[in-house]
Amino acid sequence: MHVLQGLLQDELPIINDRLARKTRELPELVRAVAEHVLMAGGKRLRPLLTILFFRCVSRGTGERVLSASSSFPSASGGSDIYPLACSMEFLHSATLLHDDILDGSDLRRGQATAHLVYGKTETILAGDVLLALGNRLVAEYGDARLSWRVAEAIMRTASGEIQELEWIKRPALSLEHYLEIITGKTAYLIQAACHCGALAGGGDEQAAQAALDYGINLGIAFQLTDDALDYSAKAEVAGKPVGNDLREGKLTLPLILYMETLSEAERKDILAWVRSLGAVADPGALSAPNMARHEHVVQAVRAAGCVEQTRAQAAQYVVLAEKALSSLPECPERIALQEALQHTLHREK
Amino acid sequence: MHVLQGLLQDELPIINDRLARKTRELPELVRAVAEHVLMAGGKRLRPLLTILFFRCVSRGTGERVLSASSSFPSASGGSDIYPLACSMEFLHSATLLHDDILDGSDLRRGQATAHLVYGKTETILAGDVLLALGNRLVAEYGDARLSWRVAEAIMRTASGEIQELEWIKRPALSLEHYLEIITGKTAYLIQAACHCGALAGGGDEQAAQAALDYGINLGIAFQLTDDALDYSAKAEVAGKPVGNDLREGKLTLPLILYMETLSEAERKDILAWVRSLGAVADPGALSAPNMARHEHVVQAVRAAGCVEQTRAQAAQYVVLAEKALSSLPECPERIALQEALQHTLHREK
Repeated sequence: MHVLQGLLQDELPIINDRLARKTRELPELVRAVAEHVLMAGGKRLRPLLTILFFRCVSRGTGERVLSASSSFPSASGGSDIYPLACSMEFLHSATLLHDDILDGSDLRRGQATAHLVYGKTETILAGDVLLALGNRLVAEYGDARLSWRVAEAIMRTASGEIQELEWIKRPALSLEHYLEIITGKTAYLIQAACHCGALAGGGDEQAAQAALDYGINLGIAFQLTDDALDYSAKAEVAGKPVGNDLREGKLTLPLILYMETLSEAERKDILAWVRSLGAVADPGALSAPNMARHEHVVQAVRAAGCVEQTRAQAAQYVVLAEKALSSLPECPERIALQEALQHTLHREK
Repeated sequence: MHVLQGLLQDELPIINDRLARKTRELPELVRAVAEHVLMAGGKRLRPLLTILFFRCVSRGTGERVLSASSSFPSASGGSDIYPLACSMEFLHSATLLHDDILDGSDLRRGQATAHLVYGKTETILAGDVLLALGNRLVAEYGDARLSWRVAEAIMRTASGEIQELEWIKRPALSLEHYLEIITGKTAYLIQAACHCGALAGGGDEQAAQAALDYGINLGIAFQLTDDALDYSAKAEVAGKPVGNDLREGKLTLPLILYMETLSEAERKDILAWVRSLGAVADPGALSAPNMARHEHVVQAVRAAGCVEQTRAQAAQYVVLAEKALSSLPECPERIALQEALQHTLHREK
C-alpha cells in the first residue's frame, strides 16, 4: 500500500486545510455544526477518489502535466481540483448530519452526534447549508454534468435512507432489497466522487464509464465491509458500540446470512424481534432481556462465520471495481486506486 | 391585472400538471410527503417568475419565437422552460418541509404540516430528495450558472432560517437584522427564480441584472406583506391563526414598529416576553395568561397602524422592483411582472 500511503501523507493535510478554510466562511452556527462533524476525523475517502480519478484521467488526456519531481504534487496547476474534492466531503457530511437525526444515533466517530450537541433544528439547517455549499462548489467548475451527477447521487442517497427506514418498520429477508438500500445510501455518492474527478480531468466516455463502474462497486464493497465491522469491530476502534445496526433494528448482511441458517420458525421469531427493536424511539436504551438477546444474536452471527461471509461478498465487488480500472492509463494514481480497494476490504474501522 | 390573470389561467394548469407528473416518479414515501406539500395549493409564484423572465428576455434576444396567435402559448417550442420553472417550486417546497419542522408549525395552507402526518425523519429525507430533484432538473439545462445561482440561493435561505432561530433565542430591536433575515429566508430563492429564467432565455448582462434586482426587491416586499398579513388576515383566509409569528416568538416588522412607539421599560418587558414565547417547545399551546397577552399585543399592533406601515415599507421595495423592469423589452410578460408586484402588495393571503 506504499503508493496510497504516500498519497495520503501528501494529500490529507491539504484536504483538511481546504475543508477547514471553507468551513470558516460559513455563518457562525452552521460553522460550529459543520466543524463538529467535519473535524472529528473521517477517512476523506470521497475527496481522495475525486483527486485520484482527476489525476489519472488527466494523464491520459494530457490536459494536465504533473511535475516530474513528484508523483503527487501537493498543489495542482491551472486547474485546482481541491474545491471539487472538498465538495464531496461537504455533501457526505450533510448526509451524515441528517442521517444521525433519523437513526437517533448518539455516537459518530467516538463523539456525541451533532444533533445532541447543537439541537435537531440547527442540525437540519446546517445539513441543508452544507448540501448547498457542496452544490455551489461543484457548479463553480462550469460543467453542468458535474452538478447533474451530484444531484442524482444525493437523490439516491436520501431515497436509500428512506427505503431503509421503511425496511426497519417491515423487515424482510431479502438480499436483493438489502443490496438496493446500501447501493442507494452509500454507493452512489462514492460513485459521484469518482465520476466527477474523471469528468473534471477531461476524461472520454471510456474513462468516465470506468469511474462509474469502479465507484459503484467500491461503494457497495465499502458498505458491506461497514456492515461486517458492525458485528466484529471493537467499540474503541469503531467509535461506536458493537452490534449497533441490530440495536437500531437494521437488518444487514451478516444477520441476513445468519438467519438463512435457521428454521423458518426461528427466522420469523427473530424478524419480529428485530422489528420491535426498530420501533423503539431511543435505540441506545435496550431493556435487560433485549440486551441479553442482542448479545446472544451478535455472538451467534459471529460464530456462524457470517462476518467473514459478508467480507467475502465485499471481495467480489472489489474484483469488479478492479476490472473497471483496466481501461485507465497505467500510472501511480491507478495503483493507488487499486490499493484503496484492498484498504477498503481489509480495514478494521 | 388582466394580463397576469390571463397568464395564470393558461399557465397554472400546465405547471401543476408538470409538478404532479414529476412527483409521481419519486420513491413511494417521498412522493406522499411531496404531494402533501405540493398539492395543497400554493401560488406557484416562483415557477411563474421563471417563465415570465424567460419569455420576456427571449423576445429581446430573439432566441425564441412566440406564436403570433397568442401571447401566452401553453407549450414552449424547442426549449422547454417548465422543468426549470418546476424546479423552483420543488426547491421552495423542500425548504417549507424543513422549515415547518424547525418552527414546530402545525398548519400550512390550512392543513396539518407534513411532519405531523408522515413523521419528522421521513419529512427531513423527503425535503432532501426534493432539493436534489430541483438541482437535477436545473442541471439538465446544461448551464452551470443556473446550478450556481440555485445553490447560492439555498445556502442563503437555510442560513437566513438559522439566523432567525438564533434571533428567536435572543430577540433585539433591529430593523437591519430583520431585513437581513427576511432577505435570506425568502428573497434569494425568489431572486434565483427570476435570474434563472433570464439566463435560460439567453439574456445579456443587463437583462440578468434586471432579473436579479427585480427578484430581490419583490422577495423582500413579498415577505414584508406576509409579515403584515400575519397580524391582519383572518384565520380562514390565511390557513393559519392570526398572530402566528408572535406565538412562535418571531419578531417581525409590525411588532418592531409597534415597539418603537413604547417606552424603553415597556419595550424591554415585551422583548423578554417574546423571548419566553420562542423558548416554548410547542408554540400551539399558550398558557391562558399568555393567550390573553398575545391577543392584547396583536390588537395593539393593529391599532397603532403598524400593519399599514409594514405594507408601506413593502411598497417601497415594489417601486425598486418596478424600476428594474425598465431595461427589459416592452412585452406582455413585462406587464405581467409589473402586475405581479401589485398583486404581491395587495394580496389578502
